[in-house]
Amino acid sequence: MRALLSPFLFLLPLLVDAQRFVRFISTDNREYYGDAILPAGSTDAAKSTTARVIVGDILGDFKITKQVKSIKKLLAPLPSERVKTVRCGGHNYVAQNNQTGNVIPQWPILFYKPSTSLSSPSDPIPVTEGYQTQGNFTSTMDYETELVIIIGKKAFNISEDEALDHVLGYSIGNDVSHRGWQIDRGGAPRPQYSMGKGADGWAPWGPAIVSTSIIPDPQTLRLWTKVNGVVKQNETTANMIFSVKKMVSFFSMGTTLLPGDVIFTGSPAGINFGKPDPEWLQDGDVIEVGLENVGTCTNTLKYT
Amino acid sequence: MRALLSPFLFLLPLLVDAQRFVRFISTDNREYYGDAILPAGSTDAAKSTTARVIVGDILGDFKITKQVKSIKKLLAPLPSERVKTVRCGGHNYVAQNNQTGNVIPQWPILFYKPSTSLSSPSDPIPVTEGYQTQGNFTSTMDYETELVIIIGKKAFNISEDEALDHVLGYSIGNDVSHRGWQIDRGGAPRPQYSMGKGADGWAPWGPAIVSTSIIPDPQTLRLWTKVNGVVKQNETTANMIFSVKKMVSFFSMGTTLLPGDVIFTGSPAGINFGKPDPEWLQDGDVIEVGLENVGTCTNTLKYT
Repeated sequence: MRALLSPFLFLLPLLVDAQRFVRFISTDNREYYGDAILPAGSTDAAKSTTARVIVGDILGDFKITKQVKSIKKLLAPLPSERVKTVRCGGHNYVAQNNQTGNVIPQWPILFYKPSTSLSSPSDPIPVTEGYQTQGNFTSTMDYETELVIIIGKKAFNISEDEALDHVLGYSIGNDVSHRGWQIDRGGAPRPQYSMGKGADGWAPWGPAIVSTSIIPDPQTLRLWTKVNGVVKQNETTANMIFSVKKMVSFFSMGTTLLPGDVIFTGSPAGINFGKPDPEWLQDGDVIEVGLENVGTCTNTLKYT
Repeated sequence: MRALLSPFLFLLPLLVDAQRFVRFISTDNREYYGDAILPAGSTDAAKSTTARVIVGDILGDFKITKQVKSIKKLLAPLPSERVKTVRCGGHNYVAQNNQTGNVIPQWPILFYKPSTSLSSPSDPIPVTEGYQTQGNFTSTMDYETELVIIIGKKAFNISEDEALDHVLGYSIGNDVSHRGWQIDRGGAPRPQYSMGKGADGWAPWGPAIVSTSIIPDPQTLRLWTKVNGVVKQNETTANMIFSVKKMVSFFSMGTTLLPGDVIFTGSPAGINFGKPDPEWLQDGDVIEVGLENVGTCTNTLKYT
């Protein structure tokens, strides 16, 4: 019996949860979902060169197979078509509010990016002509490293205690922002953030969705930004004003959060906005955003 | 030959463009897309009782058949799943800015609603517990009648001259808003509109998508709101600060607008926000929003 079954054993699912969901192009130039196999001594899925293939729907029923494939290019963990809504929580770290001169919010601040802004962890960040200047001034492109929540189960009017049951896992994302269109041209006296944050490719995320079984407590993680190798942001999610639980619960008030929805949870101090000597991002700058136990996205700003 | 073909003639497509795209439940309890047949003397598709069935994808290839079906209930012209992004243009009428004390914007103001907020032209507008009060105050629910643009063809960095080629047609929508969560609790000093506008069912739209062949110039249409039969807003789209062409072109700056995306184009004066004696919407109020040559949405506010 064992002899009979053994040739098919590779098709049986592993009886474990996926730990680091990735989506990737393999060396056969086909696209796969997978559970990233980390290289020794690293928890950065961006450094993974292989993954166990996942069959099925990572937002529904799926199986982790024993089939291992090489990773040629990591994609965003979900295609943009699977992400209905990208929510963002603003001004969620005290030190960032102090830097930007904003009051500490009493409730989570919500804004949105369109799902067309989502991109892969190594894609260029395109800056088209309309964003390359601001009148007579230089462009005011900026980075924002943020823990990203991925919703796994539909949520509506849920409590903070229930919130994490609706979370599939966590990623790192860059809420790329043009401060001119966000602030100065956002429509005073009630500026909207949308034109300064919504262009195609202005939300690289990934490299993996790390499951809640690996990260049971998302409020203990270091996150950072490096520009051309120099550290610009370095903070811990322990300092978020509104926790992951609070944000998921609050944003579900009268509102259905769908599987695949993502929530960017706000960026710490160290962004250029609010600095006396901002060093706005330039064509060719390489921006790395990273989150402890999750990994890094490394994207090059590119005038197009 | 004619005798041979005639039994099949009803399957042949009509050689005309659809004029008023609707989606509806028929008396057989099945869902259809259709081209609404207007009753005599009316251009309000909400009053249509029949429609020619459309087969195929109204965002792609489709055919209008000669099969006529009864309309039992009109749905939103597209299901929420087909609308990737709901954009909204704020403060787009001079008189509304004067009423609300806002400066006239120099550029279109952009914000978003999640596609889960979209609902059908006769659905109730649910107000869940979190929105029924604001601290010790009454709820501050408000209406906003708005011309809605439906994108038909992908658009990226397009000019104003090209814009209308990317438009499938127009609808009327209600940008339902809770002013407390929008303004007072939106996160001073840089309020975001999102929590006050994004709940499920807070964007009824329809009753049809009226094609650009019927409305070649969208800047000549009267739009209105009635609450319990009393006129509250009454304006013409001629007074939009930023035209349909301008908004479609501007919002495509570095950004892909997808077929099925909708753009709410801002509401005229007459909303409760900014009035010295606001009459906030109450449980059971019936709100009609209407647009000339398009039709009406009539929705009842409902505490849930």
